[in-house]
Amino acid sequence: MSDEEFMNLAIEEAKKGDFPFGAVIVRENKIIAKAYNTAKIDPTAHAEVNAIRNACRILNTKDLSGCTLYTTCEPCPMCFFAAWWANISRIVYGAEGKDVPEDDWKTNVKSSYLNENSGNRISIKGGVLRTECLHLLD
Amino acid sequence: MSDEEFMNLAIEEAKKGDFPFGAVIVRENKIIAKAYNTAKIDPTAHAEVNAIRNACRILNTKDLSGCTLYTTCEPCPMCFFAAWWANISRIVYGAEGKDVPEDDWKTNVKSSYLNENSGNRISIKGGVLRTECLHLLD
Repeated sequence: MSDEEFMNLAIEEAKKGDFPFGAVIVRENKIIAKAYNTAKIDPTAHAEVNAIRNACRILNTKDLSGCTLYTTCEPCPMCFFAAWWANISRIVYGAEGKDVPEDDWKTNVKSSYLNENSGNRISIKGGVLRTECLHLLD
Repeated sequence: MSDEEFMNLAIEEAKKGDFPFGAVIVRENKIIAKAYNTAKIDPTAHAEVNAIRNACRILNTKDLSGCTLYTTCEPCPMCFFAAWWANISRIVYGAEGKDVPEDDWKTNVKSSYLNENSGNRISIKGGVLRTECLHLLD
């Protein structure tokens, strides 16, 4: 399957969320876990964190090397570093963080955290089905 | 109770962890939640994240305004932004992130993420029982 096809699955997940964000984790073209945002009560339960937790439970490991995390929106720093700790190899996202209203972490953090870190360990690809992912935020 | 007394409770928590880190969340001098690291399988289950999740479940809210997060070590970016999303008002930590071996996120991130963010929303106090917290890492 293509990046766009996996992103479409993440979009379907997003539609179920407390907030409209979804994520899918894939290894060797096989879906390991899908998740949506359940942050209504638990502020750490972003779609990406939920997907990472699910994938680790399913594979009985905390090492997601070789996995790609598809997410409908550029991950916030919490989610980016959750992926970092899980050894995620690649992140593919749809909408840009700056497309999301009221996320004030961006103004201080975004310019440094992704740029300075992504090149080291995690390959990043943004803008996949960005328009469709943006529609989720309407 | 003093910051040192609450930190001592966090140190006791750390001794139970998969890795030696503990956290306590306090509001109006009352303990809301205690937690330790359970990241052996779940890489997102740092002590701070576990404490935040527990506190939110106990209080049935995702808003921890007015709460202080005591943690035996300076929080990593994942934990810092978990606290951020939870509206934690204050973070008190023991050991410095640079005291922890093999945490390569520090080299890129630390200089920017705490300094640039803490002043905005979260009050930060480091070095409380630093020596005792350092001993946990031996």
